[in-house]
Amino acid sequence: MFRTAELGKTLPKEDYHKTVEVLRSELLAVQQRLRSAPFPVIIVFGGVDGAGKSETINLLNEWMDPRWLITRAYGAPSDEMAERPEYWRFWRDLPPRGRIGMFLSCWYSRPILDRVHGRASEAEFDEDLERIVAFERDLADDDALIIKFWMHLGKEAQKERLASLEKNPLTRWRVTQTDWDHWHLYDGFIAAAEQVIMRTSTGWAQWNIVEGYDKRYRSVTVGNLLLESILKHLDEVEIRRRLASEIKERREQAATKIVAKPVDGAAPMAEEPAEPAATSGGGNGGVAEQIIRLPRVTILSRLDTTQTVDKKEYGKKLEAAQGTLNQNCRKAKQLGISTILVFEGWDAAGKGGIIRRITGALDARDFQVIPIAAPTDEESAHHYLWRFWRHLSRAGRVTIFDRSWYGRVLVERVEGFAREPEWRRAYSEIRDFEEQLVAHGIVLCKFWIHVTKDEQLRRFEERRDTPYKRWKLTDEDWRNRERWEDYELAVNDMVERTSTRRAPWTLVEGNDKRFSRLKVLSTINDRLSASLEQQEIESVKAMRKQERN
Amino acid sequence: MFRTAELGKTLPKEDYHKTVEVLRSELLAVQQRLRSAPFPVIIVFGGVDGAGKSETINLLNEWMDPRWLITRAYGAPSDEMAERPEYWRFWRDLPPRGRIGMFLSCWYSRPILDRVHGRASEAEFDEDLERIVAFERDLADDDALIIKFWMHLGKEAQKERLASLEKNPLTRWRVTQTDWDHWHLYDGFIAAAEQVIMRTSTGWAQWNIVEGYDKRYRSVTVGNLLLESILKHLDEVEIRRRLASEIKERREQAATKIVAKPVDGAAPMAEEPAEPAATSGGGNGGVAEQIIRLPRVTILSRLDTTQTVDKKEYGKKLEAAQGTLNQNCRKAKQLGISTILVFEGWDAAGKGGIIRRITGALDARDFQVIPIAAPTDEESAHHYLWRFWRHLSRAGRVTIFDRSWYGRVLVERVEGFAREPEWRRAYSEIRDFEEQLVAHGIVLCKFWIHVTKDEQLRRFEERRDTPYKRWKLTDEDWRNRERWEDYELAVNDMVERTSTRRAPWTLVEGNDKRFSRLKVLSTINDRLSASLEQQEIESVKAMRKQERN
Repeated sequence: MFRTAELGKTLPKEDYHKTVEVLRSELLAVQQRLRSAPFPVIIVFGGVDGAGKSETINLLNEWMDPRWLITRAYGAPSDEMAERPEYWRFWRDLPPRGRIGMFLSCWYSRPILDRVHGRASEAEFDEDLERIVAFERDLADDDALIIKFWMHLGKEAQKERLASLEKNPLTRWRVTQTDWDHWHLYDGFIAAAEQVIMRTSTGWAQWNIVEGYDKRYRSVTVGNLLLESILKHLDEVEIRRRLASEIKERREQAATKIVAKPVDGAAPMAEEPAEPAATSGGGNGGVAEQIIRLPRVTILSRLDTTQTVDKKEYGKKLEAAQGTLNQNCRKAKQLGISTILVFEGWDAAGKGGIIRRITGALDARDFQVIPIAAPTDEESAHHYLWRFWRHLSRAGRVTIFDRSWYGRVLVERVEGFAREPEWRRAYSEIRDFEEQLVAHGIVLCKFWIHVTKDEQLRRFEERRDTPYKRWKLTDEDWRNRERWEDYELAVNDMVERTSTRRAPWTLVEGNDKRFSRLKVLSTINDRLSASLEQQEIESVKAMRKQERN
Repeated sequence: MFRTAELGKTLPKEDYHKTVEVLRSELLAVQQRLRSAPFPVIIVFGGVDGAGKSETINLLNEWMDPRWLITRAYGAPSDEMAERPEYWRFWRDLPPRGRIGMFLSCWYSRPILDRVHGRASEAEFDEDLERIVAFERDLADDDALIIKFWMHLGKEAQKERLASLEKNPLTRWRVTQTDWDHWHLYDGFIAAAEQVIMRTSTGWAQWNIVEGYDKRYRSVTVGNLLLESILKHLDEVEIRRRLASEIKERREQAATKIVAKPVDGAAPMAEEPAEPAATSGGGNGGVAEQIIRLPRVTILSRLDTTQTVDKKEYGKKLEAAQGTLNQNCRKAKQLGISTILVFEGWDAAGKGGIIRRITGALDARDFQVIPIAAPTDEESAHHYLWRFWRHLSRAGRVTIFDRSWYGRVLVERVEGFAREPEWRRAYSEIRDFEEQLVAHGIVLCKFWIHVTKDEQLRRFEERRDTPYKRWKLTDEDWRNRERWEDYELAVNDMVERTSTRRAPWTLVEGNDKRFSRLKVLSTINDRLSASLEQQEIESVKAMRKQERN
């Protein structure tokens, strides 16, 4: 795989200077065009020691306008980083749309080194690569341009380089024992590199193997590839967006013909009894016309909303549950177990009241409530998951999301803020995101607070008629209510696609506020206790093992 | 994940009949439109026992025109199948463009059962799912529509169903002990199913979870989804193709402006010394104009084509090598090790002569030479890898490809028969394909037979001037020769992207025919011997292990 990058390719000095003069002005021009482009550029450098990774990054910083350029290199994770899932720091550093980010020793570094040093098994290595592919796919789906350079140097060339640096008294200091240690691991490194390149060279994020032997050759190669990739991507994204809107338009036209959508329960609620009827379709490429209605049953319709708790019982149970929660959270903090609580639900379902019952039991230093409204400008300039990654707390804390990343498949879907392919792929993006949280040991509880449509109306009217509650009711609430059926379907799909054994949804019957508060608290307590118990078992195991050794 | 499919959804009889009447005529109409569509439809059924998988398939066969419908269900693999990589049988059965194929218990079956019965580790299960994702992605990239139905039934509902079948004397025979055994594995099955659905619900091949409780409900749900998916896909493929040709057009326009392509060695060979010069680009969204030339060095230019073997030495060595080959192949046959030899190379490089030296050493029953020319109609109606999967031989045989799947990234790329995204993604498709061959224990040797441009000219002229050789020289040969530089670049990229440690390319210096024949024979012998040795070590190990037990 690397033989083509061991040919000793060079570029004469004079050619280099002439070429670079052109290249630099082109790169600056394209950087200007990029500023208004609807995507970020993510450049990844990987490769062999001494093949010029950091020199190339420095050169690009020199060639281009550094104001629109972000450069990030990663060493061992800090405490701050280690307390969060591995990808937190990469998400945090992603460039916004219109900018270029250059990444050195980033998400590829730890997996390769773990493999070369035998710290990761073949299976774990595969899993790492899988994570990378998924991460890059999410970004590329959001139109990010990802360009990856693998800087290569043959084993002998690397040896020569080290030897010649050592010979010169002025450069001797640059060669350390670590360099030679790395050199001795060369073959293992190359074997891992080949696997990395094979597995992670995807249609959306190709690796470019660059021969690093000659500084001039490699610099111009990287610069050229960069320039061409950006120009091509500017074109493609423009056309792709046009295509997307065309498909959307066509489907909307089709939808006016196909009255009922055949997806499980997706048929609009018929006011009168369903009456199938149709005119035959087919013909000149037109969309078939049909009227097919399926009875609409969602998971929400099966909830028993008549459950109640009387006031006296509630008082006692609430106190007990809050006490338990407080203890659980203290223990969790000691053990470094973080908790993330997600609240979604109908308007006026009582999310706020529930959250106050939780925070009331906690120390103000240990929790954070994140209300999620429309994204800020800065947030809109990133992948929609970026703002949630940002808010992940350090180990041991409780983070409460009042509305969350599920907005993508609820309000953004129903109101058309996200295009269909966007919210459709969000299900797997969210599963993947949550999987990383859970794998990091975070306790994740997701609650949908449900009230019936009648109960919501009662509460709306109460808010309207009670002066001190009036501020809570907005026109938007009434508008959302009109789309109740669409939201109900979206909730059903959301539960179907994102309620997994490791990150289940809890559907909470909320017509009785007391009932719903207790249900939420006891669910959190159960999950936390189970996790604490698990943690204790594991530390006992670890202790025993240590004793044996 | 399955809670939304345990709601007991039903469809009243009368509604059902009215709906089906419409649905059937729509399905028939869409089937007619499909016949001229540039893609196949692949429908996969998975799910719980008793949720109506096979009943639904039968029903669809009844509703639609069976002439354009293929149905496949898989049991335990036959001898024929077991001797080939697992996916051989699935590739073989794929529907051509314009047809619908329905698959039951197919590529999902073995992985899930292995996991549920504890025969596969978590890591192996992951690998299986990975393989599925890659397989479906390859098909979807080729525009195939993949629709997957997961038929679900709750644990209790399944129990009720079995019990009620047992109660009725007329249906009692349908319930066997195996059914109850499966029922006891329900929880494990559901856990595996959830992983399957999460991992393999991709943008290009979504799972649809269908509640199987009520026959009428599930049939209409499946039929509706099928209809809608096909209509949508017909639209999308049309628009997508338009997009592709628009991008191509734009890039061609851009290419006339950008004289040199900046990819590694991709710059057209300059007859005069490279002379960088440029006019500044940028501006109103136009493509930057630039002239940047990099010195062109490909891996072929580094081969030592002066190596020769004298006639006497050749005779002796050839005989010895053929003898060894014969012995190696006999042993390989006994052990069931298959060999695949791939030959690519310049016109008149001597591929035919080399192949004859190989087949001359083998028993005619044990090998097969597959000359690859332009695809037949039937072949064109499938994914381009389909015809190579077809030709995989049974265990222990030698299959020789005279030209191969690499045509995709050589002639099809250079001549523009494949669009750029097609040949670009072919590299990873090919790596994946070959990985399956190697993982199955097949010995795979790939040879590029190289001659210099001068030597080719000499041979062409000799062919032209020798009456009995004249038939070997065609106009196409001369045309190909004119595009030598493009082919050389394609070969360089091919080696870079598909020469892996498990499936390396051997570049053969072919100016001296004797030299090249011996090099090929000894390479094959080395690879075969290594594989035989490995196999022997493993069988000794297995024997020892058996003795110990």
